[in-house]
Amino acid sequence: MDLVNASGRVLAEDVVALYDYPPFDRSEVDGYAVLSSDVAEADEERPVALRVVGSVGIGEVPRFSLGDGECAEVSTGSMVPRGADAVVPVEYTKRVGDVVYIYRPVAPGDNVAHAGSDVLAGDVLLTKGTVLGPVELALLASSGIARVKVYRRVRVGIVSVGDELVEPGRVLELGKVFDVNSYYLYSSVRELGAEPVLYGSIGDDEASLERVLRRALEECDVVITSGGTSAGVGDITYR
Amino acid sequence: MDLVNASGRVLAEDVVALYDYPPFDRSEVDGYAVLSSDVAEADEERPVALRVVGSVGIGEVPRFSLGDGECAEVSTGSMVPRGADAVVPVEYTKRVGDVVYIYRPVAPGDNVAHAGSDVLAGDVLLTKGTVLGPVELALLASSGIARVKVYRRVRVGIVSVGDELVEPGRVLELGKVFDVNSYYLYSSVRELGAEPVLYGSIGDDEASLERVLRRALEECDVVITSGGTSAGVGDITYR
Repeated sequence: MDLVNASGRVLAEDVVALYDYPPFDRSEVDGYAVLSSDVAEADEERPVALRVVGSVGIGEVPRFSLGDGECAEVSTGSMVPRGADAVVPVEYTKRVGDVVYIYRPVAPGDNVAHAGSDVLAGDVLLTKGTVLGPVELALLASSGIARVKVYRRVRVGIVSVGDELVEPGRVLELGKVFDVNSYYLYSSVRELGAEPVLYGSIGDDEASLERVLRRALEECDVVITSGGTSAGVGDITYR
Repeated sequence: MDLVNASGRVLAEDVVALYDYPPFDRSEVDGYAVLSSDVAEADEERPVALRVVGSVGIGEVPRFSLGDGECAEVSTGSMVPRGADAVVPVEYTKRVGDVVYIYRPVAPGDNVAHAGSDVLAGDVLLTKGTVLGPVELALLASSGIARVKVYRRVRVGIVSVGDELVEPGRVLELGKVFDVNSYYLYSSVRELGAEPVLYGSIGDDEASLERVLRRALEECDVVITSGGTSAGVGDITYR
Protein backbone atom coordinates (compact mmCIF):
# COMPACT_ATOMS: atom_id res chain seq x y z
CA MET A 1 0.00 0.00 0.00
CA ASP A 2 1.16 3.56 -0.76
CA LEU A 3 2.64 5.45 2.16
CA VAL A 4 -0.11 8.07 2.16
CA ASN A 5 -2.88 5.49 2.33
CA ALA A 6 -1.03 3.56 5.02
CA SER A 7 -1.57 6.40 7.50
CA GLY A 8 -3.25 4.93 10.59
CA ARG A 9 -2.83 1.33 9.47
CA VAL A 10 -0.83 -1.50 11.08
CA LEU A 11 2.39 -2.75 9.50
CA ALA A 12 2.22 -6.41 8.40
CA GLU A 13 5.98 -6.87 7.89
CA ASP A 14 9.32 -5.79 9.28
CA VAL A 15 10.66 -2.96 7.13
CA VAL A 16 14.39 -2.68 6.45
CA ALA A 17 16.19 0.56 5.51
CA LEU A 18 17.10 0.78 1.82
CA TYR A 19 19.64 3.57 2.29
CA ASP A 20 21.87 5.03 4.94
CA TYR A 21 20.46 8.06 6.68
CA PRO A 22 21.81 10.60 6.23
CA PRO A 23 22.73 9.21 2.81
CA PHE A 24 25.97 11.26 2.74
CA ASP A 25 28.09 13.40 5.06
CA ARG A 26 25.72 16.29 5.45
CA SER A 27 26.32 19.78 6.80
CA GLU A 28 24.10 20.63 9.75
CA VAL A 29 24.62 24.39 9.38
CA ASP A 30 25.17 27.14 6.83
CA GLY A 31 28.89 27.91 6.82
CA TYR A 32 32.25 26.72 5.54
CA ALA A 33 33.46 23.13 5.27
CA VAL A 34 37.04 22.98 6.54
CA LEU A 35 39.79 20.63 7.64
CA SER A 36 39.59 21.05 11.41
CA SER A 37 43.37 20.93 11.86
CA ASP A 38 43.63 24.07 9.65
CA VAL A 39 41.57 26.11 12.11
CA ALA A 40 42.74 24.63 15.43
CA GLU A 41 44.43 27.92 16.38
CA ALA A 42 41.64 30.24 15.26
CA ASP A 43 40.20 32.71 17.78
CA GLU A 44 38.53 36.13 17.86
CA GLU A 45 41.90 37.93 17.96
CA ARG A 46 43.75 35.86 15.37
CA PRO A 47 41.35 34.48 12.77
CA VAL A 48 42.66 31.89 10.32
CA ALA A 49 42.36 32.81 6.64
CA LEU A 50 41.23 30.05 4.24
CA ARG A 51 40.80 30.15 0.49
CA VAL A 52 37.26 29.44 -0.74
CA VAL A 53 37.65 26.93 -3.58
CA GLY A 54 34.01 26.19 -4.19
CA SER A 55 30.45 26.13 -3.03
CA VAL A 56 28.15 23.13 -2.56
CA GLY A 57 24.46 23.81 -3.12
CA ILE A 58 21.72 21.67 -1.63
CA GLY A 59 21.37 18.48 -3.66
CA GLU A 60 24.67 19.05 -5.46
CA VAL A 61 27.66 16.72 -5.57
CA PRO A 62 30.92 18.68 -5.04
CA ARG A 63 33.25 18.23 -8.05
CA PHE A 64 36.33 19.12 -6.00
CA SER A 65 38.07 18.16 -2.78
CA LEU A 66 39.79 20.40 -0.25
CA GLY A 67 43.54 20.74 0.18
CA ASP A 68 45.48 22.46 2.98
CA GLY A 69 44.29 26.00 3.66
CA GLU A 70 41.16 25.53 1.56
CA CYS A 71 37.48 25.58 2.42
CA ALA A 72 34.09 25.43 0.67
CA GLU A 73 30.81 27.24 1.21
CA VAL A 74 28.03 24.87 2.30
CA SER A 75 24.39 25.15 3.34
CA THR A 76 22.39 23.18 5.86
CA GLY A 77 21.83 19.85 4.10
CA SER A 78 24.70 20.19 1.63
CA MET A 79 27.18 17.38 1.04
CA VAL A 80 30.44 18.03 2.82
CA PRO A 81 33.22 17.83 0.18
CA ARG A 82 36.07 15.36 0.43
CA GLY A 83 39.03 16.66 2.42
CA ALA A 84 36.79 18.48 4.92
CA ASP A 85 36.00 16.97 8.33
CA ALA A 86 33.98 19.77 9.96
CA VAL A 87 31.88 22.82 9.18
CA VAL A 88 32.35 26.28 10.73
CA PRO A 89 28.99 28.08 11.16
CA VAL A 90 28.77 31.22 9.03
CA GLU A 91 28.35 33.41 12.13
CA TYR A 92 31.98 32.68 13.14
CA THR A 93 33.37 33.65 9.74
CA LYS A 94 33.93 36.76 7.67
CA ARG A 95 34.19 36.56 3.92
CA VAL A 96 36.35 38.93 1.90
CA GLY A 97 36.35 38.00 -1.77
CA ASP A 98 37.76 34.47 -2.12
CA VAL A 99 39.10 34.46 1.41
CA VAL A 100 37.21 33.53 4.58
CA TYR A 101 38.42 34.46 8.05
CA ILE A 102 37.59 31.78 10.63
CA TYR A 103 37.17 33.11 14.20
CA ARG A 104 36.61 29.85 16.07
CA PRO A 105 38.20 26.41 16.01
CA VAL A 106 36.10 23.30 15.29
CA ALA A 107 36.75 19.71 16.28
CA PRO A 108 36.70 16.88 13.71
CA GLY A 109 33.06 16.02 12.93
CA ASP A 110 31.62 19.28 14.27
CA ASN A 111 28.39 20.25 12.47
CA VAL A 112 28.57 17.23 10.16
CA ALA A 113 25.96 14.45 10.21
CA HIS A 114 27.90 11.45 8.97
CA ALA A 115 26.45 9.09 6.38
CA GLY A 116 24.54 6.32 8.15
CA SER A 117 24.86 7.92 11.58
CA ASP A 118 21.07 7.74 12.12
CA VAL A 119 20.26 4.59 10.16
CA LEU A 120 22.37 2.09 8.23
CA ALA A 121 21.02 0.44 5.09
CA GLY A 122 19.73 -2.99 6.19
CA ASP A 123 18.72 -1.86 9.69
CA VAL A 124 15.18 -2.79 10.70
CA LEU A 125 13.34 0.53 10.63
CA LEU A 126 9.98 -0.64 11.91
CA THR A 127 8.71 -4.00 13.07
CA LYS A 128 5.56 -5.86 12.10
CA GLY A 129 2.59 -4.65 14.14
CA THR A 130 3.66 -1.00 14.33
CA VAL A 131 0.85 1.53 13.94
CA LEU A 132 1.82 3.94 11.16
CA GLY A 133 1.47 7.56 12.30
CA PRO A 134 3.21 10.70 11.03
CA VAL A 135 6.56 9.84 12.64
CA GLU A 136 6.62 6.30 11.27
CA LEU A 137 5.69 7.43 7.76
CA ALA A 138 8.42 10.08 7.87
CA LEU A 139 10.93 7.41 8.89
CA LEU A 140 9.87 5.15 6.01
CA ALA A 141 10.01 8.04 3.54
CA SER A 142 13.50 9.00 4.75
CA SER A 143 14.70 5.59 3.60
CA GLY A 144 12.96 5.87 0.25
CA ILE A 145 10.26 3.33 1.03
CA ALA A 146 7.12 4.09 -0.97
CA ARG A 147 4.98 1.03 -0.34
CA VAL A 148 4.43 -1.18 2.71
CA LYS A 149 2.34 -4.20 3.55
CA VAL A 150 -0.34 -3.41 6.11
CA TYR A 151 -3.01 -5.53 7.70
CA ARG A 152 -6.51 -4.88 6.49
CA ARG A 153 -8.67 -3.05 8.98
CA VAL A 154 -10.49 -5.21 11.51
CA ARG A 155 -14.16 -5.40 10.50
CA VAL A 156 -16.45 -4.99 13.47
CA GLY A 157 -20.13 -5.87 13.06
CA ILE A 158 -22.59 -3.96 15.24
CA VAL A 159 -25.98 -5.47 16.10
CA SER A 160 -28.50 -3.83 18.42
CA VAL A 161 -31.19 -6.07 19.84
CA GLY A 162 -34.59 -5.09 21.19
CA ASP A 163 -38.25 -4.84 20.17
CA GLU A 164 -38.27 -1.30 21.54
CA LEU A 165 -35.63 0.04 19.16
CA VAL A 166 -36.49 2.48 16.38
CA GLU A 167 -34.02 3.75 13.79
CA PRO A 168 -33.37 7.52 14.07
CA GLY A 169 -35.24 9.38 11.35
CA ARG A 170 -38.36 7.25 11.76
CA VAL A 171 -41.39 8.19 13.84
CA LEU A 172 -41.12 7.21 17.49
CA GLU A 173 -44.19 5.27 18.62
CA LEU A 174 -45.14 5.43 22.27
CA GLY A 175 -43.10 3.05 24.41
CA LYS A 176 -40.24 2.81 21.91
CA VAL A 177 -36.80 4.42 22.01
CA PHE A 178 -34.35 5.26 19.27
CA ASP A 179 -31.40 2.97 18.68
CA VAL A 180 -28.52 4.85 20.29
CA ASN A 181 -25.96 2.10 20.85
CA SER A 182 -25.43 1.39 17.15
CA TYR A 183 -24.30 4.96 16.53
CA TYR A 184 -22.16 5.19 19.64
CA LEU A 185 -20.41 1.94 18.75
CA TYR A 186 -20.03 2.84 15.07
CA SER A 187 -18.21 6.05 15.88
CA SER A 188 -16.10 4.44 18.63
CA VAL A 189 -15.01 1.59 16.38
CA ARG A 190 -14.08 4.04 13.64
CA GLU A 191 -12.08 6.19 16.07
CA LEU A 192 -10.09 3.07 16.95
CA GLY A 193 -9.10 2.65 13.29
CA ALA A 194 -11.27 -0.39 12.65
CA GLU A 195 -14.05 -0.67 10.07
CA PRO A 196 -17.54 -0.70 11.61
CA VAL A 197 -20.42 -2.46 9.82
CA LEU A 198 -23.95 -1.66 11.00
CA TYR A 199 -26.50 -4.46 10.97
CA GLY A 200 -29.26 -2.27 12.42
CA SER A 201 -31.56 -3.18 15.27
CA ILE A 202 -33.20 -6.57 15.48
CA GLY A 203 -36.35 -7.38 17.46
CA ASP A 204 -36.27 -9.82 20.37
CA ASP A 205 -36.92 -12.71 18.01
CA GLU A 206 -34.48 -15.59 18.14
CA ALA A 207 -34.83 -16.68 14.52
CA SER A 208 -34.14 -13.31 12.93
CA LEU A 209 -31.40 -12.54 15.45
CA GLU A 210 -29.69 -15.83 14.66
CA ARG A 211 -29.92 -15.10 10.94
CA VAL A 212 -28.36 -11.65 11.33
CA LEU A 213 -25.67 -12.84 13.72
CA ARG A 214 -24.65 -15.68 11.41
CA ARG A 215 -24.30 -13.24 8.56
CA ALA A 216 -22.38 -10.73 10.69
CA LEU A 217 -20.02 -13.43 11.97
CA GLU A 218 -19.31 -14.51 8.39
CA GLU A 219 -18.66 -10.99 7.16
CA CYS A 220 -16.79 -9.56 10.16
CA ASP A 221 -13.84 -10.37 12.39
CA VAL A 222 -15.66 -9.26 15.52
CA VAL A 223 -19.36 -8.79 16.24
CA ILE A 224 -20.63 -6.57 19.05
CA THR A 225 -24.22 -7.06 20.19
CA SER A 226 -26.01 -4.82 22.63
CA GLY A 227 -29.31 -5.42 24.38
CA GLY A 228 -31.57 -8.43 24.02
CA THR A 229 -30.13 -10.36 26.92
CA SER A 230 -33.38 -10.27 28.90
CA ALA A 231 -34.98 -12.72 26.47
CA GLY A 232 -32.12 -15.19 26.79
CA VAL A 233 -31.02 -14.06 23.38
CA GLY A 234 -27.40 -14.00 24.49
CA ASP A 235 -27.35 -17.76 24.03
CA ILE A 236 -27.58 -17.35 20.28
CA THR A 237 -24.41 -15.26 20.23
CA TYR A 238 -22.45 -18.16 21.69
CA ARG A 239 -23.83 -20.80 19.32
CA MET B 1 -25.15 13.94 6.09
CA ASP B 2 -26.05 10.58 7.64
CA LEU B 3 -25.13 10.16 11.28
CA VAL B 4 -22.65 7.38 10.57
CA ASN B 5 -20.74 9.41 8.01
CA ALA B 6 -20.78 12.45 10.28
CA SER B 7 -18.43 10.71 12.73
CA GLY B 8 -15.43 12.98 13.27
CA ARG B 9 -16.95 15.93 11.39
CA VAL B 10 -17.87 19.39 12.67
CA LEU B 11 -21.51 20.39 13.10
CA ALA B 12 -22.55 23.31 10.84
CA GLU B 13 -25.83 24.06 12.63
CA ASP B 14 -27.42 24.08 16.06
CA VAL B 15 -29.40 20.87 16.47
CA VAL B 16 -32.67 20.88 18.39
CA ALA B 17 -34.20 17.82 20.09
CA LEU B 18 -37.16 16.35 18.18
CA TYR B 19 -38.46 14.34 21.13
CA ASP B 20 -38.34 14.34 24.89
CA TYR B 21 -35.76 12.03 26.38
CA PRO B 22 -36.74 9.73 27.85
CA PRO B 23 -39.75 9.84 25.53
CA PHE B 24 -42.04 8.41 28.26
CA ASP B 25 -41.96 7.66 31.99
CA ARG B 26 -39.50 4.82 31.92
CA SER B 27 -38.68 2.24 34.56
CA GLU B 28 -35.02 2.26 35.55
CA VAL B 29 -35.15 -1.23 37.07
CA ASP B 30 -36.81 -4.62 36.72
CA GLY B 31 -39.59 -4.77 39.28
CA TYR B 32 -43.14 -3.66 40.01
CA ALA B 33 -44.72 -0.31 39.18
CA VAL B 34 -46.73 0.85 42.19
CA LEU B 35 -48.49 3.82 43.72
CA SER B 36 -45.95 4.86 46.35
CA SER B 37 -48.62 5.70 48.94
CA ASP B 38 -49.78 2.04 48.79
CA VAL B 39 -46.39 0.81 50.01
CA ALA B 40 -45.45 3.60 52.43
CA GLU B 41 -45.76 1.21 55.41
CA ALA B 42 -43.96 -1.75 53.81
CA ASP B 43 -40.98 -3.26 55.62
CA GLU B 44 -39.19 -6.59 55.98
CA GLU B 45 -41.50 -7.70 58.82
CA ARG B 46 -44.81 -6.51 57.37
CA PRO B 47 -44.74 -6.61 53.58
CA VAL B 48 -47.60 -4.98 51.69
CA ALA B 49 -49.51 -7.27 49.33
CA LEU B 50 -50.48 -5.84 45.93
CA ARG B 51 -52.45 -7.42 43.11
CA VAL B 52 -50.56 -7.77 39.81
CA VAL B 53 -52.94 -6.51 37.14
CA GLY B 54 -50.60 -6.62 34.18
CA SER B 55 -47.12 -6.66 32.78
CA VAL B 56 -45.43 -4.10 30.53
CA GLY B 57 -42.83 -5.48 28.14
CA ILE B 58 -40.06 -3.37 26.65
CA GLY B 59 -41.47 -1.28 23.81
CA GLU B 60 -45.07 -1.99 24.82
CA VAL B 61 -47.76 0.53 25.69
CA PRO B 62 -49.71 -0.55 28.80
CA ARG B 63 -53.41 -0.94 28.00
CA PHE B 64 -54.43 -0.50 31.63
CA SER B 65 -53.91 1.85 34.55
CA LEU B 66 -53.41 1.03 38.21
CA GLY B 67 -55.99 1.45 40.94
CA ASP B 68 -55.54 1.25 44.71
CA GLY B 69 -53.73 -1.90 45.82
CA GLU B 70 -52.66 -2.74 42.29
CA CYS B 71 -49.27 -3.02 40.63
CA ALA B 72 -47.75 -4.06 37.30
CA GLU B 73 -44.64 -6.00 36.35
CA VAL B 74 -42.12 -3.85 34.47
CA SER B 75 -38.62 -4.27 33.06
CA THR B 76 -35.76 -1.80 32.80
CA GLY B 77 -36.85 0.47 29.96
CA SER B 78 -40.56 -0.34 30.16
CA MET B 79 -43.21 2.37 30.18
CA VAL B 80 -44.56 2.95 33.67
CA PRO B 81 -48.37 2.54 33.49
CA ARG B 82 -50.74 5.33 34.44
CA GLY B 83 -51.64 5.35 38.13
CA ALA B 84 -48.12 4.30 39.17
CA ASP B 85 -45.60 6.85 40.45
CA ALA B 86 -42.66 4.61 41.42
CA VAL B 87 -41.11 1.21 40.79
CA VAL B 88 -40.07 -1.28 43.48
CA PRO B 89 -36.97 -3.26 42.41
CA VAL B 90 -37.71 -6.97 42.02
CA GLU B 91 -35.19 -7.84 44.75
CA TYR B 92 -37.47 -6.25 47.39
CA THR B 93 -40.53 -8.21 46.28
CA LYS B 94 -41.83 -11.74 46.40
CA ARG B 95 -44.40 -12.96 43.91
CA VAL B 96 -47.01 -15.56 44.77
CA GLY B 97 -49.38 -16.11 41.86
CA ASP B 98 -51.15 -12.82 41.12
CA VAL B 99 -50.00 -11.25 44.37
CA VAL B 100 -46.70 -9.50 45.04
CA TYR B 101 -45.37 -8.83 48.52
CA ILE B 102 -43.49 -5.54 48.76
CA TYR B 103 -40.79 -5.45 51.47
CA ARG B 104 -39.63 -1.85 51.15
CA PRO B 105 -41.34 1.50 50.74
CA VAL B 106 -40.56 3.74 47.76
CA ALA B 107 -40.92 7.50 47.45
CA PRO B 108 -42.82 9.09 44.54
CA GLY B 109 -40.60 9.02 41.45
CA ASP B 110 -38.23 6.33 42.76
CA ASN B 111 -36.72 4.29 39.91
CA VAL B 112 -38.69 6.19 37.28
CA ALA B 113 -37.00 8.35 34.63
CA HIS B 114 -39.67 10.89 33.81
CA ALA B 115 -40.45 11.85 30.23
CA GLY B 116 -38.25 14.77 29.22
CA SER B 117 -36.16 14.66 32.40
CA ASP B 118 -32.92 14.47 30.37
CA VAL B 119 -33.93 16.48 27.32
CA LEU B 120 -37.10 18.34 26.35
CA ALA B 121 -38.21 18.46 22.72
CA GLY B 122 -37.01 21.82 21.40
CA ASP B 123 -33.91 21.98 23.61
CA VAL B 124 -30.67 22.70 21.78
CA LEU B 125 -28.85 19.36 21.86
CA LEU B 126 -25.60 20.44 20.23
CA THR B 127 -24.36 23.78 18.98
CA LYS B 128 -22.77 24.67 15.67
CA GLY B 129 -19.05 23.91 15.70
CA THR B 130 -19.26 20.79 17.87
CA VAL B 131 -16.99 17.92 16.82
CA LEU B 132 -19.14 14.81 16.41
CA GLY B 133 -17.67 11.89 18.35
CA PRO B 134 -19.36 8.77 19.73
CA VAL B 135 -21.08 10.63 22.59
CA GLU B 136 -22.46 13.37 20.34
CA LEU B 137 -23.74 10.89 17.77
CA ALA B 138 -25.44 8.89 20.54
CA LEU B 139 -27.11 12.07 21.78
CA LEU B 140 -28.38 12.90 18.28
CA ALA B 141 -29.62 9.34 17.76
CA SER B 142 -31.45 9.42 21.11
CA SER B 143 -33.54 12.28 19.77
CA GLY B 144 -34.23 10.51 16.50
CA ILE B 145 -32.00 12.74 14.41
CA ALA B 146 -30.71 10.85 11.38
CA ARG B 147 -29.08 13.59 9.33
CA VAL B 148 -27.08 16.68 10.25
CA LYS B 149 -25.35 19.47 8.41
CA VAL B 150 -21.59 19.34 8.81
CA TYR B 151 -18.82 21.52 7.47
CA ARG B 152 -16.80 19.97 4.71
CA ARG B 153 -13.33 18.93 5.78
CA VAL B 154 -10.68 21.62 5.59
CA ARG B 155 -8.50 20.91 2.54
CA VAL B 156 -4.82 21.33 3.33
CA GLY B 157 -2.36 21.49 0.44
CA ILE B 158 1.16 20.22 1.14
CA VAL B 159 4.10 21.48 -0.92
CA SER B 160 7.72 20.50 -0.27
CA VAL B 161 10.35 22.73 -1.79
CA GLY B 162 13.95 21.87 -2.61
CA ASP B 163 16.18 20.77 -5.48
CA GLU B 164 17.54 18.04 -3.22
CA LEU B 165 14.22 16.26 -2.73
CA VAL B 166 13.50 12.86 -4.26
CA GLU B 167 10.18 11.05 -4.03
CA PRO B 168 10.38 7.80 -2.02
CA GLY B 169 10.41 4.82 -4.35
CA ARG B 170 12.79 6.50 -6.80
CA VAL B 171 16.55 6.01 -6.89
CA LEU B 172 18.45 8.34 -4.57
CA GLU B 173 21.24 10.13 -6.42
CA LEU B 174 24.25 11.25 -4.44
CA GLY B 175 23.66 14.52 -2.61
CA LYS B 176 19.86 14.17 -2.64
CA VAL B 177 17.50 13.19 0.17
CA PHE B 178 14.04 11.70 0.12
CA ASP B 179 11.06 13.98 0.67
CA VAL B 180 10.09 13.25 4.27
CA ASN B 181 8.06 16.33 5.20
CA SER B 182 5.27 15.65 2.71
CA TYR B 183 4.51 12.30 4.33
CA TYR B 184 4.81 13.56 7.88
CA LEU B 185 2.46 16.44 7.12
CA TYR B 186 0.03 14.28 5.16
CA SER B 187 -0.44 11.89 8.05
CA SER B 188 -0.61 14.69 10.65
CA VAL B 189 -3.24 16.60 8.69
CA ARG B 190 -5.29 13.44 8.30
CA GLU B 191 -5.05 12.67 12.02
CA LEU B 192 -6.48 16.13 12.70
CA GLY B 193 -9.57 15.28 10.63
CA ALA B 194 -8.71 17.52 7.70
CA GLU B 195 -8.19 16.43 4.09
CA PRO B 196 -4.55 16.56 2.98
CA VAL B 197 -3.66 17.10 -0.68
CA LEU B 198 -0.09 16.33 -1.76
CA TYR B 199 1.47 18.54 -4.41
CA GLY B 200 4.80 16.70 -4.30
CA SER B 201 8.22 18.30 -4.10
CA ILE B 202 9.16 21.26 -6.24
CA GLY B 203 12.69 22.33 -7.14
CA ASP B 204 14.08 25.68 -5.98
CA ASP B 205 12.73 27.35 -9.10
CA GLU B 206 10.51 30.36 -8.57
CA ALA B 207 8.40 29.95 -11.70
CA SER B 208 7.36 26.35 -11.11
CA LEU B 209 6.90 26.97 -7.39
CA GLU B 210 4.64 29.92 -8.10
CA ARG B 211 2.60 27.82 -10.54
CA VAL B 212 2.14 25.01 -8.01
CA LEU B 213 1.37 27.37 -5.14
CA ARG B 214 -1.25 29.24 -7.17
CA ARG B 215 -2.95 25.97 -8.01
CA ALA B 216 -2.76 24.74 -4.40
CA LEU B 217 -4.17 28.01 -3.08
CA GLU B 218 -7.08 27.75 -5.51
CA GLU B 219 -7.85 24.15 -4.64
CA CYS B 220 -7.25 24.23 -0.88
CA ASP B 221 -8.26 26.22 2.18
CA VAL B 222 -4.76 26.13 3.63
CA VAL B 223 -1.39 25.47 2.02
CA ILE B 224 1.63 24.31 4.01
CA THR B 225 5.04 24.70 2.39
CA SER B 226 8.25 23.32 3.81
CA GLY B 227 11.80 24.10 2.74
CA GLY B 228 12.90 26.41 -0.03
CA THR B 229 13.29 29.47 2.14
CA SER B 230 17.05 29.70 1.54
CA ALA B 231 16.46 30.79 -2.06
CA GLY B 232 14.10 33.59 -1.01
CA VAL B 233 11.30 31.40 -2.25
CA GLY B 234 9.20 32.26 0.78
CA ASP B 235 8.37 35.54 -0.92
CA ILE B 236 6.28 33.72 -3.48
CA THR B 237 4.12 32.19 -0.77
CA TYR B 238 3.09 35.66 0.40
CA ARG B 239 2.32 37.00 -3.07
